[in-house]
Amino acid sequence: MPKLHRDTLTELARTSLLNAGAHAGMAAATAQALVRADMQGLATHGVSRVPFYCAMLKNGRADGKAHPRVMSGHKAVCVIDNAGGLGYEGCALAANEAVRRAREFGIAYAGVTNGHHIGALALALSPMVEAGQIGIALSNSPAAMPAWGGQTATLGTNPVAAVFPRTGMDPVVVDLSMTTVTRGRIMLAAQKGERIPEGWALDRHGKPTTDAQEVLEAGTLFPVGGSKGAMLALVFELLCTALTGAAISRDNDSFFTEAGNRPSLGQGFIAIDPGAAAGRAVYDERVETLIAMMLSEDGVRLPGGRRFEAQRLAIREGIDISEALLLKLNALAAA
Amino acid sequence: MPKLHRDTLTELARTSLLNAGAHAGMAAATAQALVRADMQGLATHGVSRVPFYCAMLKNGRADGKAHPRVMSGHKAVCVIDNAGGLGYEGCALAANEAVRRAREFGIAYAGVTNGHHIGALALALSPMVEAGQIGIALSNSPAAMPAWGGQTATLGTNPVAAVFPRTGMDPVVVDLSMTTVTRGRIMLAAQKGERIPEGWALDRHGKPTTDAQEVLEAGTLFPVGGSKGAMLALVFELLCTALTGAAISRDNDSFFTEAGNRPSLGQGFIAIDPGAAAGRAVYDERVETLIAMMLSEDGVRLPGGRRFEAQRLAIREGIDISEALLLKLNALAAA
Repeated sequence: MPKLHRDTLTELARTSLLNAGAHAGMAAATAQALVRADMQGLATHGVSRVPFYCAMLKNGRADGKAHPRVMSGHKAVCVIDNAGGLGYEGCALAANEAVRRAREFGIAYAGVTNGHHIGALALALSPMVEAGQIGIALSNSPAAMPAWGGQTATLGTNPVAAVFPRTGMDPVVVDLSMTTVTRGRIMLAAQKGERIPEGWALDRHGKPTTDAQEVLEAGTLFPVGGSKGAMLALVFELLCTALTGAAISRDNDSFFTEAGNRPSLGQGFIAIDPGAAAGRAVYDERVETLIAMMLSEDGVRLPGGRRFEAQRLAIREGIDISEALLLKLNALAAA
Repeated sequence: MPKLHRDTLTELARTSLLNAGAHAGMAAATAQALVRADMQGLATHGVSRVPFYCAMLKNGRADGKAHPRVMSGHKAVCVIDNAGGLGYEGCALAANEAVRRAREFGIAYAGVTNGHHIGALALALSPMVEAGQIGIALSNSPAAMPAWGGQTATLGTNPVAAVFPRTGMDPVVVDLSMTTVTRGRIMLAAQKGERIPEGWALDRHGKPTTDAQEVLEAGTLFPVGGSKGAMLALVFELLCTALTGAAISRDNDSFFTEAGNRPSLGQGFIAIDPGAAAGRAVYDERVETLIAMMLSEDGVRLPGGRRFEAQRLAIREGIDISEALLLKLNALAAA
């Protein structure tokens, strides 16, 4: 498999996005975020998404001319209008606003409306890590699961991510969605003709099913842990939409088809400065005490650890890209 | 079953706690919170806990002379030292501080250290509801589950609660723990000699078990949804301890035995003013749009709704108390 230097890959992604109609800032922010995902071993959220984003720019489901801006703000809170462009630039603006405001007020919230797909959510929290702040990110997404007790997909997979910086060490990183598995896992099973385990999905009537094809045609994903996952997805849905004005997950068309509306996803970023609470020394001591307690047991590993090992390897040795994807990217960059 | 007026029941609980050594403010705050839980149909977190709290006061696991105070604060963030007293007074101070600061800054965080058991978490968020703010509450608790991959109970059940006020309507209320079920459910099965379903608990070797007695003796509870529940429990544990200096769940002795240390639990309260984000009108419209979408389906009900129906009934007709509990409370109040 070809290995590319991160700068080469970033340039390839950036040029592809420019060719598809993204303005310079949008193309750069998107390419940078995607390559960072590849570097951390998250290939499904990396440059493999460039063809998807280019298609969105070309068919109008993303506006390549959109410039995100702070729409409203009051002290420790603000809302960013992403204006229907690709998601990463608005996200970066929101994370930076949250950091700046948390530095002043101790905690801050920055929301995003008219947002788009933003891939691996935890990556958006690197400004918090660099600032020594706790970061929390939320996003809604095209509808994937019913409200608890229902059968129509209404809530998104609604991922949540959190980062806890550590002094001189990689941060703790948690990043997960509120469905048992992603739709991608169901597609993989369908392609292989395999049945899926119970607890992954519901059929068109809202009943548990093991038929992957049925799920893709008309089913829904099952919330992680049943009603508790569904309740948390509802909390995150409200936080992402009611504070920003973004569209409810059900009103954002699927990303698995080329056709559909321009999404108005909602995102929320919270930054907290430990120095404004019990202090950085207490924070460091408590974090390291808990981590030492956890890692004293065989079989326990720190969430996020593998991401940074992968990143160091990618910086040293480059990033693996399949021949097929490289061909596609070269074609998009040359177009 | 005897029915008591809420004021009679509050007075009974308050006098019991005073007799056990709680000072006036602590006894009043505790009695009020417990009766509110009973009114909302949450009897396991209501005055049935008075004997437990009285025992804690008498054996020194709670300090009846403690007065919670704001220990440190910076603009939108503060930390309350609950000083080892019963939990409710410190909690109420924290929730009120969060509301006051969110009114000024748009969002606020108030943490609690040296905290104690605080029962039904969402009840602590009523100051946010009254102020028209979103409220989020977190608490750690004596260790109940291993870190993912381990077998020693390290993290608590680590509940999270959220409230979303609605104009002229009962708020949306979500309140849940990060274990599949509570320890109380396992005790019930053990008392009846029943086996528990898989997915509820692990045995002393960290393996799934259906033996309720084994779980009570040396097992642990299973995180809701497996690894995702364990990861969220870790996030909540860090938020509750690293921002406040409170003890890790594992360092707080069980509440199911009389003997043990004085807990130093950590709690966190976040308040967000929708008026500082996209505005109250946008908030109301988005909340009601999502709720209407959800309730248009048969089988979907709004989380928290039954609590307020129960509360209205309790105000009209009084609160059911078992003969056995009433005897206990009368004895504690007369002592």
